[in-house]
Amino acid sequence: MAKKADILVRFGKRVRELRTEQGYSQEAFADACELDRTYIGGIERGERNLALRNIDRIANTLGITLSDLMEGL
Amino acid sequence: MAKKADILVRFGKRVRELRTEQGYSQEAFADACELDRTYIGGIERGERNLALRNIDRIANTLGITLSDLMEGL
Repeated sequence: MAKKADILVRFGKRVRELRTEQGYSQEAFADACELDRTYIGGIERGERNLALRNIDRIANTLGITLSDLMEGL
Repeated sequence: MAKKADILVRFGKRVRELRTEQGYSQEAFADACELDRTYIGGIERGERNLALRNIDRIANTLGITLSDLMEGL
């Protein structure tokens, strides 16, 4: 049976899903978050073990709660 | 009107609340998380901008989802 994907990978997929649902390009989303586009790319690929302040910044940009951002992870 | 407390402070209070509800001392909780007691203390005081892997470790130790851990923040 497949092992549950790493939390960073699951989180990255969740961010990509929510970002695209809201019609943001990666670049526009990075600008809205005031983060670097390559950093957002790294998050979405599950390569960044990002910290709480940046997680909160992503939730704020998406206009959702941290709890909603983490839903299903 | 009071400014909403910083996300690190709100998260720390939430961890302390859940930890004590489950009857863990700070030391026992740190052991269960395989984290240092002083690190858990710093988190609970809102002094640590901890990253996703350690947030996930805390949720796992508490036996709750990340979404539940973030509830109300």
